[in-house]
Amino acid sequence: MTAQAPTAPADVYAEVQHFYARQMRYLDSGEAETWAGTFTEDGSFAPPSLPEPVRGRPLLAEGARNAAAGLAAARETHRHWVGMLTVTPADDGSLTAESLVSIVAVAQGGPARLHLVCTCRDVLVREGGRLLVRERVVTRDDRP
Amino acid sequence: MTAQAPTAPADVYAEVQHFYARQMRYLDSGEAETWAGTFTEDGSFAPPSLPEPVRGRPLLAEGARNAAAGLAAARETHRHWVGMLTVTPADDGSLTAESLVSIVAVAQGGPARLHLVCTCRDVLVREGGRLLVRERVVTRDDRP
Amino acid sequence: MTAQAPTAPADVYAEVQHFYARQMRYLDSGEAETWAGTFTEDGSFAPPSLPEPVRGRPLLAEGARNAAAGLAAARETHRHWVGMLTVTPADDGSLTAESLVSIVAVAQGGPARLHLVCTCRDVLVREGGRLLVRERVVTRDDRP
Repeated sequence: MTAQAPTAPADVYAEVQHFYARQMRYLDSGEAETWAGTFTEDGSFAPPSLPEPVRGRPLLAEGARNAAAGLAAARETHRHWVGMLTVTPADDGSLTAESLVSIVAVAQGGPARLHLVCTCRDVLVREGGRLLVRERVVTRDDRP
Repeated sequence: MTAQAPTAPADVYAEVQHFYARQMRYLDSGEAETWAGTFTEDGSFAPPSLPEPVRGRPLLAEGARNAAAGLAAARETHRHWVGMLTVTPADDGSLTAESLVSIVAVAQGGPARLHLVCTCRDVLVREGGRLLVRERVVTRDDRP
Repeated sequence: MTAQAPTAPADVYAEVQHFYARQMRYLDSGEAETWAGTFTEDGSFAPPSLPEPVRGRPLLAEGARNAAAGLAAARETHRHWVGMLTVTPADDGSLTAESLVSIVAVAQGGPARLHLVCTCRDVLVREGGRLLVRERVVTRDDRP
């Protein structure tokens, strides 16, 4: 039996759930700049598909724009679905948020299909009252 | 970078999460009248399958009864799964709740399959302390 | 229209959501003893695959170890995904937590697939400040 990890209070937990619902909605609806604005200026995103993290809002936005264009060309909608979230406060005021993310793909006229399941580990910080991602590491379950 | 939308406080967020868990459970277990009672008297539901919204508890209950009978005949269970929820309070005291809804279908003896993914936009109001749906608009991702 | 069931307050709801996220992460990452420690000493788990509940931490841990070994041999990852949670406080201080649980299976190199959808009904109790499962009953949708 291990000690229970420190748990963010309910108001912070609800805030982080809201944060993800909005952030993923920006991504899935192709609002690339708004999505990039949910990271810090020098925020980094290490997706499983790239050897190095993407760093900074301009490159983050470019990546999101390219992804949206690819999906539009394929006439497909992606929905990022976050769940199984834990939020652990650190001494420096940041939050470590760990979750599962499912990506559901829906083709025009076609069935919905479960495209991917990833684990997501974010470091969230607060700037001017808003939560922002300082560092995101995403891992796929189907890769070693 | 856009301003963060006003966020319902944690107690309201948890209440809305509870509301959906109960409401969808009524629907999936065929409790048609109880499900209809989670809408206001003149509540409306605009599903993607109909040209006009269904309005009022008697018609809502009839629709739910018919859906349950169809599933029973097909020996299939549907589970509505709500996630990626945002709850935004309006000046008139109502709440706009936006979410993704997955429908998982499970045939007797058969595998579970992801049947549909929809977006759901509800206007929730409080009557006698209880949350009720005044207006629901559901959109499917696989239709233009 | 039925009376609304008593709803656990937001802080308890967030705590239970955290509890499940951690508990299922232990299970899915093969931390069998830690997972068993999220049950009471004599906690019981009635899975749909067994005629009798498994009772007590040693047997719970053994079951989790066997499941993890089977998945490792099959080079497959399982992710338990809890949602549609309701938490209802009882007079004796325990909580009844009802949820849907999806199990997503991901084979090495293969696609993610929805393996199962279950309903989970737990009685949670507090010991030394920590939530623990005293009794778990899991039901599969594809079995009568």
